[in-house]
Amino acid sequence: MSEPDVTIGRAKLNEIADQAGVSLSTVSKVLNGRSDVAAITRKRVEGILDEHGYQRRAGLPGRNTLIELVFPDLDTVWAMELIRGVENVAKANGLSVVVTESGNRHSPSPDWITGVLRRRPVGVVLVFSDLSEDAKAQLRSRAIPFVIVDPAGDPAPDVPSVGSANWSGGLMATRHLIELGHSRIAAITGPDDMMCSHARLDGFRSAMNTAKLPVDESLVAFGNFHVDGGRDNARAMLDRDDRPTAIFAGSDLQALGVLDAARSLGIQVPAQLSIVGYDDLQLAQWTSPSLTTVHQPLTRMAEEAARLIIRMSEGELESIPRVDLATRLIVRESTAALAARSA
Amino acid sequence: MSEPDVTIGRAKLNEIADQAGVSLSTVSKVLNGRSDVAAITRKRVEGILDEHGYQRRAGLPGRNTLIELVFPDLDTVWAMELIRGVENVAKANGLSVVVTESGNRHSPSPDWITGVLRRRPVGVVLVFSDLSEDAKAQLRSRAIPFVIVDPAGDPAPDVPSVGSANWSGGLMATRHLIELGHSRIAAITGPDDMMCSHARLDGFRSAMNTAKLPVDESLVAFGNFHVDGGRDNARAMLDRDDRPTAIFAGSDLQALGVLDAARSLGIQVPAQLSIVGYDDLQLAQWTSPSLTTVHQPLTRMAEEAARLIIRMSEGELESIPRVDLATRLIVRESTAALAARSA
Repeated sequence: MSEPDVTIGRAKLNEIADQAGVSLSTVSKVLNGRSDVAAITRKRVEGILDEHGYQRRAGLPGRNTLIELVFPDLDTVWAMELIRGVENVAKANGLSVVVTESGNRHSPSPDWITGVLRRRPVGVVLVFSDLSEDAKAQLRSRAIPFVIVDPAGDPAPDVPSVGSANWSGGLMATRHLIELGHSRIAAITGPDDMMCSHARLDGFRSAMNTAKLPVDESLVAFGNFHVDGGRDNARAMLDRDDRPTAIFAGSDLQALGVLDAARSLGIQVPAQLSIVGYDDLQLAQWTSPSLTTVHQPLTRMAEEAARLIIRMSEGELESIPRVDLATRLIVRESTAALAARSA
Repeated sequence: MSEPDVTIGRAKLNEIADQAGVSLSTVSKVLNGRSDVAAITRKRVEGILDEHGYQRRAGLPGRNTLIELVFPDLDTVWAMELIRGVENVAKANGLSVVVTESGNRHSPSPDWITGVLRRRPVGVVLVFSDLSEDAKAQLRSRAIPFVIVDPAGDPAPDVPSVGSANWSGGLMATRHLIELGHSRIAAITGPDDMMCSHARLDGFRSAMNTAKLPVDESLVAFGNFHVDGGRDNARAMLDRDDRPTAIFAGSDLQALGVLDAARSLGIQVPAQLSIVGYDDLQLAQWTSPSLTTVHQPLTRMAEEAARLIIRMSEGELESIPRVDLATRLIVRESTAALAARSA
């Protein structure tokens, strides 16, 4: 692969226009994200721009002062922690953050792409598990760096991304319960179609296996990461004679649901039931009792993504970065040593 | 007052430069928020621009596609609800939202102002109880419309703002408790130096007075709107023989603190104690029991502010808007009818 040109002047753009068999103004329209170019022409020009390793000039006045952060859904409880992370790094670098809600869980909408091409940000932090090939091509051909922040844990291999150590999180949560003397431990993980759910559950299984404890499959469930997923699964598990003494809840919201199920069944937390959450959202400190939980470093993940964006915009990276930040256990009041067994 | 010019061309800027006794390039530097202009010169030019009713031309290519939202602190629990509101309106109008954390509770920092002047947004939504005279002058002289979203309830009279009905909120919360049969009711409102704390408390007093119920001043406290403020005040009130049977908590976070105080004293909610919160944050649905609370329409307040910004940028408003949106009571599980008095 040849070294990318640092800038492409008018001469170079003429060359690209010739090669694509279009006018210079068409190349310029494509670069500016204008919609009045036929899709097939746009793709051809993008392909050639990509071959030439087109890079924008840094420091154009009034440009490159924005960093974009795109969510599929601003309703998620951790949106704020991610915004804060990008904002921290932006502020330190004299940049401003554009926050957009766009698209579905998989990719931002084409409308958003058009807007980004017009705004020409330093780069884009995307909170998506994947990005459409079309979106990737559009961003790459304009040399707009992008990084995926991926709490779901399943990024495509050709995309720069920042995640966290889900398997280790599940392992730590379960080890903590085992160290407290629990052996009948349930796990309510996330949805079946998210890789992070499987990674956390596999961590749980490994902790049980290495401690030579059996996993009762009737005490393993896939939830939905929301309160009701925790409540419904916990109610079924707790409303039986051989109920578990501890539950690893897979998310803080599910842990809130488990707390509610326990209260409605008259089961004391932590005296009769220990609960570990996952995420360490702000609210984990505020529940009663406060939640022992696995800290997912959402703010730091967003900071790392924003820093990568800035380095990429300065042409500093050689390979596609894929970073997983460490998780850690935060012990609060929802877990306790197993009391002597009552008859 | 003369009609403002819709645009100011080069000729007009020359006139302003003459009047200020500076060069055209200095006027242009001031307009663009450059820092290399002496403060005294900047102020003079701003004053003259303001006299001339300077307005930017709408629809400059690549301009006017941003709307700014500034927080003193992204750590507040309601930041997300406000971002969502501005984003809703921005999206519907083809705009993007720049989110910034800047300054203290009273005004954004001078750095931020410089950035805004450079970015030239459609307008600015500010989450501050006030704005420095300097900041107001800078935004006004560049004809950048701004609206304050003010959950604290004490906007300056010369500034457009959107708030909510704090007094009615306090009244509704207390009436609900009275209707359930409670008469020994405590109130933990917010900090003494925020007008919304006083408005909510006055609503509480009016509800008590019109029901001919005495207010026990030892059951009235100013909290800090955080969990510990609720917990500490509630513990003192609940750990006495003549404890209240209901507490109006003034914020959802304080209500969480009251819940925790009750649990640690072995007092059942709602059987032995009713609790009403204030705000209706998302988490109010997730506590156990879920919170009866006063809904403060934060997302709608931000939407209204963003809509006002757009109308102001189109020159549609004649007077300074000051809007208070209605609050309403959401009844959930933390309140119940007073049980027959035990001896």
